[in-house]
Amino acid sequence: MKSVLVTGASGFIGRQTLKPLIERGYRVHAVARRPAHGEAAGSVTWHACDLLAPGAAEALIATARPSHLLHLAWNTAPGQYWTAADNLDWVAASLRLYRAFSNAGGVRVVVGGTCAEYCWEAPELDEISTPLRPRTLYGTAKNSLRQLIEAQAGAGNGPSWAWGRTFFLFGPHEDHRRLVSGVMTSLLAGQPALCSHGRQQRDFMHVADVAAAFVALLDSPVVGPVNIASGRCRMVAEVVTMIAEMVGRPDLIRLGARPAPADEPLRLAAATHRLFQEVGFKPVFDLPAALAETLSWWRGSDLSAPSNPAGAAQP
Amino acid sequence: MKSVLVTGASGFIGRQTLKPLIERGYRVHAVARRPAHGEAAGSVTWHACDLLAPGAAEALIATARPSHLLHLAWNTAPGQYWTAADNLDWVAASLRLYRAFSNAGGVRVVVGGTCAEYCWEAPELDEISTPLRPRTLYGTAKNSLRQLIEAQAGAGNGPSWAWGRTFFLFGPHEDHRRLVSGVMTSLLAGQPALCSHGRQQRDFMHVADVAAAFVALLDSPVVGPVNIASGRCRMVAEVVTMIAEMVGRPDLIRLGARPAPADEPLRLAAATHRLFQEVGFKPVFDLPAALAETLSWWRGSDLSAPSNPAGAAQP
Repeated sequence: MKSVLVTGASGFIGRQTLKPLIERGYRVHAVARRPAHGEAAGSVTWHACDLLAPGAAEALIATARPSHLLHLAWNTAPGQYWTAADNLDWVAASLRLYRAFSNAGGVRVVVGGTCAEYCWEAPELDEISTPLRPRTLYGTAKNSLRQLIEAQAGAGNGPSWAWGRTFFLFGPHEDHRRLVSGVMTSLLAGQPALCSHGRQQRDFMHVADVAAAFVALLDSPVVGPVNIASGRCRMVAEVVTMIAEMVGRPDLIRLGARPAPADEPLRLAAATHRLFQEVGFKPVFDLPAALAETLSWWRGSDLSAPSNPAGAAQP
Repeated sequence: MKSVLVTGASGFIGRQTLKPLIERGYRVHAVARRPAHGEAAGSVTWHACDLLAPGAAEALIATARPSHLLHLAWNTAPGQYWTAADNLDWVAASLRLYRAFSNAGGVRVVVGGTCAEYCWEAPELDEISTPLRPRTLYGTAKNSLRQLIEAQAGAGNGPSWAWGRTFFLFGPHEDHRRLVSGVMTSLLAGQPALCSHGRQQRDFMHVADVAAAFVALLDSPVVGPVNIASGRCRMVAEVVTMIAEMVGRPDLIRLGARPAPADEPLRLAAATHRLFQEVGFKPVFDLPAALAETLSWWRGSDLSAPSNPAGAAQP
């Protein structure tokens, strides 16, 4: 029976991968520092583990002996992950995890990458032709890890591999400091949503589709980097306006109230041929349905936690 | 008092760094799996340590508390280091060492890099203008580690850093399977030296100069990558012929007896402005003196170990 070790399994994407993995017949080992027990809890073996601790990755692989590895854990704390020094710790821990998995005979690994690996000046970010030129420590860390896994495979070492590059995702459990969650929680609390100019064009995708795409990629024979995106770019102002209309509070949208980062690219469009044609993935949600589902989740959740103003658009 | 932790301190380059470090006033902590006690043994604190073991790097830094770090340890076994899977382990261990050093307040780090990080098609390999496009797992591993340290420093994290890129070095204690050592030991044993065509142009440097250059770089404020090379390219055939004349056995040289790797570049020339002008380093040896000193060392060493045929030129 195929078995998968999922890291970051209580995280934003990871928690949504458990159900589709079970549906595809995987025995699931879920890893988190503090395991969260959701709907799939009964069918999942949870491992409480801090992957940054020396020896933790090796012990985890020895215990779980997975045939597949879906590695999503990283520092993703908004406002700090772009430049956090522990990006280097995550590269080191990821290499140790990958090597332990490989040494134990693991057959297939998929790792969470990012659109921040690309040179952002390209009109469309394409897995084959776009140069990789990360501008941030986070992007450099992810790109370095991918280079190493790719070179290792090129030298004939290690398991079959793929690399999912995420773009702009949103959905249930999203951190309040990110765009869609920030706007929704502000509006639901009757507070103004302070936004930047909103002319940025981004590829938005519901996190459940992102997670399902990672699972489809893991379950496919496709090798190398694959963009995890909808293939459709939308203006941030358009998305914010859709949310405001759903909530019924367009009066609370404050476009231009916050500065946009000076070096922020206006457009980040994703090529999706590999995901849709090669992997054969189909998303469940279009944008209105994805926003409606997310809004419904926020309506049902505890909004008493402080809602932060909506930040600039971010991956 | 400034103190330095030297990894790979019993290795080909590392063992030659101890004396110049002491001469520059460093208290020296030397690290090796199996410490070798040479002439500087009395002034050096040796630490027996396998840096690939979980937690080893952190424990080492906690014990030695160095102000400076000279990180030279890596898998350098001829014939396998280009593609060895443990290149990834060395990246992970190096990151952990770097992070532990940084977290403990370390002020300056220099790491051993390689000319194999560069795109080898450039007429001269220059730290500023030559694209980085490693073709091997080894080159990718070194390049990834450098990218991470550079991005970390760019994000305002970590100690002052420099990165020494070595080219073609030779000297005492060199592995028999490398070019100069292979030719010398073959000729001294009265056996033919089987070489490739010999038209490759390489920058050769005596390992004592390489080591002294690393020490000068560590003791300087220069930031970023610096080629460690003589600045003069020589044909492999010319070098081999010089050796043969010194030994008095030109009859034993067999140019063309071995195939050269198909994708081997004909010329690898190093820019040396940064090393000579910015760091202010001056090598002790010119090529004839460097070869003579090395030959003298081989004459005095135990040649009963099997001498392998001279391989193709290699960094």
